[in-house]
Amino acid sequence: MEAMASSSSAAKPKPSTTLRVAAFSGSLRKGSWHGGLIRAAEELCEESIPGLQIDHVDISGLPMSNPDLETDDGDGFPPDVEAFRDRVRAADCFLFASPEYNYSVTATLKNALDWASRGTHKCWADKAAAIVSAGGSCGGGRAAFHLRQIGVFLDIHFINKPELQVRAYEDPPKFDADGNLVDAETRERLKQVLLSLQAFALRLQH
Amino acid sequence: MEAMASSSSAAKPKPSTTLRVAAFSGSLRKGSWHGGLIRAAEELCEESIPGLQIDHVDISGLPMSNPDLETDDGDGFPPDVEAFRDRVRAADCFLFASPEYNYSVTATLKNALDWASRGTHKCWADKAAAIVSAGGSCGGGRAAFHLRQIGVFLDIHFINKPELQVRAYEDPPKFDADGNLVDAETRERLKQVLLSLQAFALRLQH
Amino acid sequence: MEAMASSSSAAKPKPSTTLRVAAFSGSLRKGSWHGGLIRAAEELCEESIPGLQIDHVDISGLPMSNPDLETDDGDGFPPDVEAFRDRVRAADCFLFASPEYNYSVTATLKNALDWASRGTHKCWADKAAAIVSAGGSCGGGRAAFHLRQIGVFLDIHFINKPELQVRAYEDPPKFDADGNLVDAETRERLKQVLLSLQAFALRLQH
Amino acid sequence: MEAMASSSSAAKPKPSTTLRVAAFSGSLRKGSWHGGLIRAAEELCEESIPGLQIDHVDISGLPMSNPDLETDDGDGFPPDVEAFRDRVRAADCFLFASPEYNYSVTATLKNALDWASRGTHKCWADKAAAIVSAGGSCGGGRAAFHLRQIGVFLDIHFINKPELQVRAYEDPPKFDADGNLVDAETRERLKQVLLSLQAFALRLQH
Repeated sequence: MEAMASSSSAAKPKPSTTLRVAAFSGSLRKGSWHGGLIRAAEELCEESIPGLQIDHVDISGLPMSNPDLETDDGDGFPPDVEAFRDRVRAADCFLFASPEYNYSVTATLKNALDWASRGTHKCWADKAAAIVSAGGSCGGGRAAFHLRQIGVFLDIHFINKPELQVRAYEDPPKFDADGNLVDAETRERLKQVLLSLQAFALRLQH
Repeated sequence: MEAMASSSSAAKPKPSTTLRVAAFSGSLRKGSWHGGLIRAAEELCEESIPGLQIDHVDISGLPMSNPDLETDDGDGFPPDVEAFRDRVRAADCFLFASPEYNYSVTATLKNALDWASRGTHKCWADKAAAIVSAGGSCGGGRAAFHLRQIGVFLDIHFINKPELQVRAYEDPPKFDADGNLVDAETRERLKQVLLSLQAFALRLQH
Repeated sequence: MEAMASSSSAAKPKPSTTLRVAAFSGSLRKGSWHGGLIRAAEELCEESIPGLQIDHVDISGLPMSNPDLETDDGDGFPPDVEAFRDRVRAADCFLFASPEYNYSVTATLKNALDWASRGTHKCWADKAAAIVSAGGSCGGGRAAFHLRQIGVFLDIHFINKPELQVRAYEDPPKFDADGNLVDAETRERLKQVLLSLQAFALRLQH
Repeated sequence: MEAMASSSSAAKPKPSTTLRVAAFSGSLRKGSWHGGLIRAAEELCEESIPGLQIDHVDISGLPMSNPDLETDDGDGFPPDVEAFRDRVRAADCFLFASPEYNYSVTATLKNALDWASRGTHKCWADKAAAIVSAGGSCGGGRAAFHLRQIGVFLDIHFINKPELQVRAYEDPPKFDADGNLVDAETRERLKQVLLSLQAFALRLQH
């Protein structure tokens, strides 16, 4: 992926480092729009955003968060959780594709956030992040504020602008039946989110 | 339990109906304070609150919420989920013992809320509820507001007063090592929450 | 106003009591949509909702909330504030026409809420309320949740459904240049909000 | 002030720039704790934080926010408002001493936030900020989250850590009768907030 990104951006100034974006979908549905948003983000990075690379982290198989499952005085975790935490820790910044269920984040996403918040290694801390969503009337916007409040404790630095909250039921169609993002304007807006995330993450590296 | 409650309240005016309170702990920990709060609520109802009865609903075994697991056009659910939904639907009101993980509700609780929000039967709708919590600085108070926002969509009517957000790390000790509530003052405050919930639920029955 | 309401509803069953709804607009603008929503609510009550009567309370002239302006150990207030508090106290329930400024309630509305929260008389406590708004993408919906959180401390019982958050920039036009509500569908939705408020307030009277 | 700061920090490495912190108290009370927190911040910067300088901006005299008072197609403001906006625009970062009134920010603070959000000059945008508060049970913590949500639209970057939410009613006394901060430990915590704000503002300058 990195190679492709480099070659496709041959004429552009190459950034000194490639930032790794750990991306999480809060939905378990096969044809989820949120999985589609992450796939589109992967494509956008490969095609046209040198220096940014998506690592889609699957959070569907994690056990339900439970401190009783921790060992070593709270620093040991079930194998799946350890592997997940390593991916979070290795990332430079985060992309949350966060559906709104009942005006808040999904249990799936909250579970992942909680697992990587435990122990002495603060996996989320002091890194930049962006939130994107798709949904009904507010496009998932109410859930985004819950995620931001969670992020205060986790010490995540969210970008403020642009916000991408896709109203998925309005014309023109935004996603196909498999959840793939098919609307060019939304795709461009997603690109602007990624560029803003990249710029913010680079500023925070100082 | 109902029999005990009736006999212990023999001298008191018997309410025409006994309200069933479905009670949920958002924690999976064995020695959880939130399990302890529900046990204390059960005892209080049996001992001294005629007309109110706790049904402690275990939400620890539910699969992670996923619309792909639904059948019958969204009105069929896995057996565990069906059984859980039946308990919610049978209740007259709700008691949420809701820990604060990273300034929000736990995945365990959100998962239960989401499962019972699906389908044509609105399991939560138009019923009274109370939130109690125990934790650090704010005693879990930040998570309570997220639960209230979720409740707007679910159409839950939360009591406003009194609020019980136990600062569990301050003297005197509030819970023993098994999570049992051992502080008399907190117990009395919990009783006031239950009485307020009962009164509010009765008003809403009109 | 009450006479008109009575005469226009001659054929309908007359409720035993008329509920007074104190209505507040959070905007100071002359042509405000929120003033328009309250005017439409007044008309709807007079025309077609027997037993419900709007009292539009002007909050534009209140001084900025400041405990130093209180006398009598916190139970005396400047004359304008006293008069405002009397109107709040006399109401049976509330209608907040609450614009969203920067993702929250306006200073004008917060100021009124704060003034009537002071002193030993709890002007807001234990009464039903509804929130309506008009605005951009979410129609003011983000501010509504702040108002609900404020209402927890004030002990206000908000209806959950239906929600009326008018997307004022979308076709067909919702308001004319003077802020009058001109869209029939929105008017009908406003009526449903008022009926829900009335029903909830009546249930709470028990 | 700058001179004093420079001389007191003779032995320390001098930062290339002095950051100006516009500081706002959300309270109008004469003996307000929040005024006291800003005075303490001023002293701390002069005494021991080279490169950081407080500009205490008085927001008590602003008219209530009202778009009808704007001229020049929304880019002209009443003289007091213009002067206030200039101070905001001149700042490098912000310190909000934000009391909690009824679980949210005060009208006084919201009014200032709204005035400086208007027009084509985005006075708040893309600058770092910190929130401090003093109050009852949660020390003002519930209001802080409302301010953070407002900040998303204004494009303010808040530090996450440390949080300073002073429980003002607990021993030892935190403030004297004039609102002066008298508790050494709280003073040290305030200093850590200021250092974190300085560090974050410097990172964002890249």
